[in-house]
Amino acid sequence: MLTFYYATNTCALASHIALEEAGADYETHWIDFKSAEQTKPDYLAINPKARVPALKTDRGVLTETPAILAYVAQTHPQAKLAPLDDPFAFAELQGFVNYLCATVHVAHAHRGRGYRWADDPAAIEAMKKKVPQSVGACFELIERKMFRGLWVMGEAYTIADPYLFTLARWMEVDGVDPAAFPRVLDHRDRMAERPAVQRVLKSEGLA
Amino acid sequence: MLTFYYATNTCALASHIALEEAGADYETHWIDFKSAEQTKPDYLAINPKARVPALKTDRGVLTETPAILAYVAQTHPQAKLAPLDDPFAFAELQGFVNYLCATVHVAHAHRGRGYRWADDPAAIEAMKKKVPQSVGACFELIERKMFRGLWVMGEAYTIADPYLFTLARWMEVDGVDPAAFPRVLDHRDRMAERPAVQRVLKSEGLA
Repeated sequence: MLTFYYATNTCALASHIALEEAGADYETHWIDFKSAEQTKPDYLAINPKARVPALKTDRGVLTETPAILAYVAQTHPQAKLAPLDDPFAFAELQGFVNYLCATVHVAHAHRGRGYRWADDPAAIEAMKKKVPQSVGACFELIERKMFRGLWVMGEAYTIADPYLFTLARWMEVDGVDPAAFPRVLDHRDRMAERPAVQRVLKSEGLA
Repeated sequence: MLTFYYATNTCALASHIALEEAGADYETHWIDFKSAEQTKPDYLAINPKARVPALKTDRGVLTETPAILAYVAQTHPQAKLAPLDDPFAFAELQGFVNYLCATVHVAHAHRGRGYRWADDPAAIEAMKKKVPQSVGACFELIERKMFRGLWVMGEAYTIADPYLFTLARWMEVDGVDPAAFPRVLDHRDRMAERPAVQRVLKSEGLA
């Protein structure tokens, strides 16, 4: 049995959906960010980085969205969530996933987590101000150059799909107009229709 | 034949070392950041993200350090640079690699690339000021909680090792005192003694 640690409205949604799509045997453990539960000793014993998601397995705890997504795909091959026998196609997928993690999510994080990178309140405000542009530039690149269709990587649905869906749900709050990115928007709409996605959104109180 | 696109003093060093350690059949193509070559049409045709590293293969181009590192490991299994047949251990490795990419490198990037996340020159200065603290906190976590020894992930040398080496080389310029992190520093010293690392440093003009 896997235990999945998550908080609502975080990137943990991507791994949560992947677990559900894979038909994984897992239970969830909600971490209350409002009371800063992620910084308390109980959770730091699970993930000393004080972040979500974390996935407890019988061999230990895994962290970082790209690592968890690939693990779910590799341990549930019947779900066909990644091209497991093709290192080149797997690396293309990992490249997309990593762009979401290290560039798109990072750009987004400057809206609400600027204190990670500056102490001056004016600087933190200046970071917030640029988010519509920096996140918008990411979605521009995804829309024009990276998104293949039908799904992110082409005909096959993969672990990149719930991750793009997760970050694309933040466009409005980031001041990015989804109408400027019709392929990403259509993907977001189609994702929301998937039964696994609906189950997860409901269980996180988001639908 | 692989073609590896890199610039000097960037995170591309990690993938370059991995290619050399793997005994890969590759040639290098230096991108001149001083003349902003990465933003010119010739390079954008290779990587529209205008970043390095990029790895051209006979099936197309791969980008993003964690994706390239895993690809090198998977396509050169004899080099034993990753636990390829153990999804849990592979995910632990990917988790470490991803932390370097999305947290450590991102913290470092606020010293020289603050313009990505704010326009105000005072905000960009405020970001620079926090780098010793934010990067230092990352190395604190690596030193105390994440680094296993002998190598990053334990007894086996993996793709995480050249990546940690690459980012640890930036401690001084980031205002982080390496002496505070003896295990990371010892790792950096031992890495610098490896013949593959020496060959790569020499070919990049760094030694």
